[in-house]
Amino acid sequence: MSHNSFGHLFRVTTWGESHGPAIGCVVDGTPPGLRFSEADIQRYLDERRPGQSRYTTQRQEPDQVRVLSGVLPGEREGELVSTGTPIALHIDNVDQRSKDYSEIARRYRPGHADITYDMKYGVRDYRGGGRSSARETATRVAAGAIARLVVPGLVVRGALVQIGDVAIDRVRFDWEETRRNPFFCPDAATAERWAELLDGVRKSGSSVGAVVEVVAEGVPAGLGAPLYGKLDADIAAGLMSINAVKGVEIGDGFASATLSGEENADEIRMGNDGKPRFLSNHAGGILGGIATGQPVVARFAVKPTSSILTPRRSVDADGQEVEVMTKGRHDPCVGIRAVPIGEAMVACAIADHYLRHRAQTGR
Amino acid sequence: MSHNSFGHLFRVTTWGESHGPAIGCVVDGTPPGLRFSEADIQRYLDERRPGQSRYTTQRQEPDQVRVLSGVLPGEREGELVSTGTPIALHIDNVDQRSKDYSEIARRYRPGHADITYDMKYGVRDYRGGGRSSARETATRVAAGAIARLVVPGLVVRGALVQIGDVAIDRVRFDWEETRRNPFFCPDAATAERWAELLDGVRKSGSSVGAVVEVVAEGVPAGLGAPLYGKLDADIAAGLMSINAVKGVEIGDGFASATLSGEENADEIRMGNDGKPRFLSNHAGGILGGIATGQPVVARFAVKPTSSILTPRRSVDADGQEVEVMTKGRHDPCVGIRAVPIGEAMVACAIADHYLRHRAQTGR
Amino acid sequence: MSHNSFGHLFRVTTWGESHGPAIGCVVDGTPPGLRFSEADIQRYLDERRPGQSRYTTQRQEPDQVRVLSGVLPGEREGELVSTGTPIALHIDNVDQRSKDYSEIARRYRPGHADITYDMKYGVRDYRGGGRSSARETATRVAAGAIARLVVPGLVVRGALVQIGDVAIDRVRFDWEETRRNPFFCPDAATAERWAELLDGVRKSGSSVGAVVEVVAEGVPAGLGAPLYGKLDADIAAGLMSINAVKGVEIGDGFASATLSGEENADEIRMGNDGKPRFLSNHAGGILGGIATGQPVVARFAVKPTSSILTPRRSVDADGQEVEVMTKGRHDPCVGIRAVPIGEAMVACAIADHYLRHRAQTGR
Amino acid sequence: MSHNSFGHLFRVTTWGESHGPAIGCVVDGTPPGLRFSEADIQRYLDERRPGQSRYTTQRQEPDQVRVLSGVLPGEREGELVSTGTPIALHIDNVDQRSKDYSEIARRYRPGHADITYDMKYGVRDYRGGGRSSARETATRVAAGAIARLVVPGLVVRGALVQIGDVAIDRVRFDWEETRRNPFFCPDAATAERWAELLDGVRKSGSSVGAVVEVVAEGVPAGLGAPLYGKLDADIAAGLMSINAVKGVEIGDGFASATLSGEENADEIRMGNDGKPRFLSNHAGGILGGIATGQPVVARFAVKPTSSILTPRRSVDADGQEVEVMTKGRHDPCVGIRAVPIGEAMVACAIADHYLRHRAQTGR
Repeated sequence: MSHNSFGHLFRVTTWGESHGPAIGCVVDGTPPGLRFSEADIQRYLDERRPGQSRYTTQRQEPDQVRVLSGVLPGEREGELVSTGTPIALHIDNVDQRSKDYSEIARRYRPGHADITYDMKYGVRDYRGGGRSSARETATRVAAGAIARLVVPGLVVRGALVQIGDVAIDRVRFDWEETRRNPFFCPDAATAERWAELLDGVRKSGSSVGAVVEVVAEGVPAGLGAPLYGKLDADIAAGLMSINAVKGVEIGDGFASATLSGEENADEIRMGNDGKPRFLSNHAGGILGGIATGQPVVARFAVKPTSSILTPRRSVDADGQEVEVMTKGRHDPCVGIRAVPIGEAMVACAIADHYLRHRAQTGR
Repeated sequence: MSHNSFGHLFRVTTWGESHGPAIGCVVDGTPPGLRFSEADIQRYLDERRPGQSRYTTQRQEPDQVRVLSGVLPGEREGELVSTGTPIALHIDNVDQRSKDYSEIARRYRPGHADITYDMKYGVRDYRGGGRSSARETATRVAAGAIARLVVPGLVVRGALVQIGDVAIDRVRFDWEETRRNPFFCPDAATAERWAELLDGVRKSGSSVGAVVEVVAEGVPAGLGAPLYGKLDADIAAGLMSINAVKGVEIGDGFASATLSGEENADEIRMGNDGKPRFLSNHAGGILGGIATGQPVVARFAVKPTSSILTPRRSVDADGQEVEVMTKGRHDPCVGIRAVPIGEAMVACAIADHYLRHRAQTGR
Repeated sequence: MSHNSFGHLFRVTTWGESHGPAIGCVVDGTPPGLRFSEADIQRYLDERRPGQSRYTTQRQEPDQVRVLSGVLPGEREGELVSTGTPIALHIDNVDQRSKDYSEIARRYRPGHADITYDMKYGVRDYRGGGRSSARETATRVAAGAIARLVVPGLVVRGALVQIGDVAIDRVRFDWEETRRNPFFCPDAATAERWAELLDGVRKSGSSVGAVVEVVAEGVPAGLGAPLYGKLDADIAAGLMSINAVKGVEIGDGFASATLSGEENADEIRMGNDGKPRFLSNHAGGILGGIATGQPVVARFAVKPTSSILTPRRSVDADGQEVEVMTKGRHDPCVGIRAVPIGEAMVACAIADHYLRHRAQTGR
Repeated sequence: MSHNSFGHLFRVTTWGESHGPAIGCVVDGTPPGLRFSEADIQRYLDERRPGQSRYTTQRQEPDQVRVLSGVLPGEREGELVSTGTPIALHIDNVDQRSKDYSEIARRYRPGHADITYDMKYGVRDYRGGGRSSARETATRVAAGAIARLVVPGLVVRGALVQIGDVAIDRVRFDWEETRRNPFFCPDAATAERWAELLDGVRKSGSSVGAVVEVVAEGVPAGLGAPLYGKLDADIAAGLMSINAVKGVEIGDGFASATLSGEENADEIRMGNDGKPRFLSNHAGGILGGIATGQPVVARFAVKPTSSILTPRRSVDADGQEVEVMTKGRHDPCVGIRAVPIGEAMVACAIADHYLRHRAQTGR
């Protein structure tokens, strides 16, 4: 029982702080014979990388991943073959600004985990947020790249579907578009509105929340399990474990509370391929904790970062009342960079269930 | 790694099907010296028990719990003292109507786990829904009663806050009221509106979804952990593991997506007791996965049951297209009985983290 | 992390005390579609059952097992089919002699866990040894019966190979013989010597230790894993978890300390079946934690029971120095009944690794 | 459930192969506020380091450990303070001789895990033994150094007590002596006999087995648990997980099979400190899986390495019969370097149980 691991059979254990020498993770349980390259992992890290637009933090991290174990060189240049032993992924920290932490070391930033880490541990790495910094999520994305390889045919994609009060227009949903704008927005028109919105937020030194949607296609029917090891329960835990996430939905989610039984249940007919075909997907691809074979649809809400340029009332470690204001780098909408992280967590949960399903059923 | 366990140190493993001879659970990791009686558990089971109003299923189950292990008789009549060894809780099934299952055994009810169990296992206990029946949740409620004893001062209460489109009026929120109406509604006026709404739903043979809110007071600051064993991640997994749940929120949840950083971050001052005092609780009592000492607030959405009296299109196990319609007992709003179940899952997650916190910090 | 569970994917959680109403276990992770009857489990319980000869305790327990969940009725009379959900096995306690426990409740029997339970928990079920009684092992044997079904072709057999200083003659090792004498002795001549030895031990009110050997044939090559989840490490943990066990060996075990590298390494040639064939089995069927396909051979040492009719110096819970002497039932060699228990633990470990292997490799 | 982790609450996950760029481990669950330096870890690594005498392999590895996470700088030079987040320990591989592996890549060395890795995974890192190399044990020793800090007052020491047929003289047992000879031998006279014995073994290109004893003092009474999470079961699993180990004993171990109940049970009197005092320690400090407060005594048997200079019959990956002979570095008695590794595993098991005990009992 590790507080820093995710998954049971496909098991990711992460380590590292924002301003230590490096961060990394150990991916255990990977099937042998998977073929990939460091570039296949790097590709996802580059999507999450900060400092790529004016809408995210300006910290500059190359996030160059190295595979330190668990692989043999393959036949092709740069190709690696998994051996079934633990894969250690290592990312050096480069841009830890050396600065004076004496102030932040003692002052609790409202909305941050500063105060709760101190409540729990009595000691805390205050440098750049330490372990609670979103820096750790780079290791999740790296692990997610391995997870995607575990399940043949799996495609996991994410999109930002809401910033503040502005949600996307579902009619114009286009996965291709998510790669064309700096918001992973599936709808070009909404992306433009968000650019305007975020410029205002950024200039005022404020921040705003967001909603991310992740869709996994190619999830084999039967993955998941009753009753506590449900696929949706594990996806929920994985998404809720991402920094700043406050809500998770599967399929229609909270909207299903307003539906009638007639509206909600997905009817079934036989498909041309001789398999059952669902006529709708209110369930988000999961019934009774087990995948139906339809796309698995999950959404999660990301709160606005509390690192804002307006002074906020707080206290320090000595019990003095103080005002706290973020200085330096500022991230107006942390929800943007949460997209590849959400994809990674969903991929990891599915890879884990793929192995668990195979264990019990032999399929 | 059990698919049928919840928790790590306070660990609940449940077993049993709707129409087997009994259901039960094993509660492992309980501290020694806890004092309770079977009546202390029974009290919560009675809240969840079906057939108590016309708004829930008419199945009649006394749900009489027996404690089969892990306790010594205490000094007082009926008192039990935990010994630290596993506590086995046992509930006989009484009202398994013997009927002809030949039809339902082969036909997949839309919105139910019938089809996914078959996809996964190739064999399925179709009698009364088998393992996927809400019958199993009685064992959760029993385990939750033990969990509540683990954390001194813990109070976990739940309320139904929305049925269909009708949400409660927060100004009139009154915990006492939840015990006075058949909906666990904290607001008498809304309870009346729900009665009317549900009478219509029931008469039309339809069903409707709901939202439950659970509030845990007395959660010690510091409980929880980064980064995967977060208190909120474990609560989310626990709630999502309840039948028919499709969404989970902590604190402001999805609404936090629409907030600004200024609105969202809970400011802090010093309280009269010399401890930090938060001026609001948008975070729902959890920051960075760790409890702040404020009330922990979680909400979850329950979909409408798919067992409705209107025929729905489906298929059977032989690949034939059929129409399926529920006969017999009918539950217009399964969200109602989810209230004590949600409480139990939150209590179990907190008890587990209480032990995990004590392990690492010695407090 | 349960203190009362064994295995990861094939996971057994046991509960119950010597003098409670019942004992039982939950077997989770069983593949669906296994066919068996209660009689198939009962058969192994009958082997372990006390009171079958004058060489074991005279407690009379029918040990009638009931399967309460996780199965559907099969086509044949009494046949059960596993559904993949948890299998609850239940055994009522019958012969809990009601007697005055006031003395034993406070006095620590030397060599027993009485004192350490009190050191740990501060409260203890003293009735018949409570949780530390060998009574619990009935549930292991029942779980082992399920485990044997999980791995096609698996045969797990045990024998007593030493009592006190008298070891079997390996030349006369005959599995059939183990079913013909009350000692599970594979050699009739040694069984006679043991009968004489134990008659003396029994009459003098003393007890004696023993060594058990378990051999598992049909273990697929490749089962197991480096480096902590080794097959031999898990077998060692399982056997060491049996009451009174103080040592565990795989293959040549401690004798391998005296061998040279030439003697110890099992050479390999090609067999007629086109597969590698080992010329010896010093390794006990496991290399690097992974099964070679040869028989897996494990041995464990059982200490003499400390319940003897000679007074021993001890203390009581109040810190008074006392003398303790066992009254009533007396078991001169607990090693005898450890044979079916050892088989069960080895079977459980192998079943667990069978599922773990399948998860990672798909085979 | 990781195949490469040890422990539940004090959890060590290791990664790395003999000839990869590095090896390392993640230590999760460490209490906050532990103070140590890299030198405190290095000290134990130096004891295990190869090439320190002519009796161990000549591979030259500085085994310089770096702490990459989970710590803050302390007040003193080089001092580190644990923060409660995962501690990543990293050791670069330096002396991976680049050589031609084409032969060894396909040929199975008898007594090695080469063949079983291929049976399991179908792919294997053959370079220097890959994951199955004893190289990995450096990470165990590093983790053990942290484990020792977790339990106040804990002292874990190991000694080699037998090489081949030559056991130590227990009368002359002296812990100080273990640091004076290259064998960790607690008896100078025996050390001289071993030197002679091993010179012969080394010159003949052979190898020999050994027995290691580990004694842990300062283990708090009450640590451990029934029935599967026993302290002795976890120590057994930990020791059996070390390369080449084939047997494990607690206390009198296999010798207890030959004892009578009178001889075996440790009698108890009251000590001058008002606590129970055991008059002997046949139990090795553990009764019913729970520590008595006496020294915990464990022994394990290490087989002779199979890398010998005499040709042995084997097969290759293509099914051809071949002869295999080790070239290059040769280790006549791998049992020697197993001493610090055994200490580490016992320390890790005790640290884990220390946290587990605290979780359940609050002490």
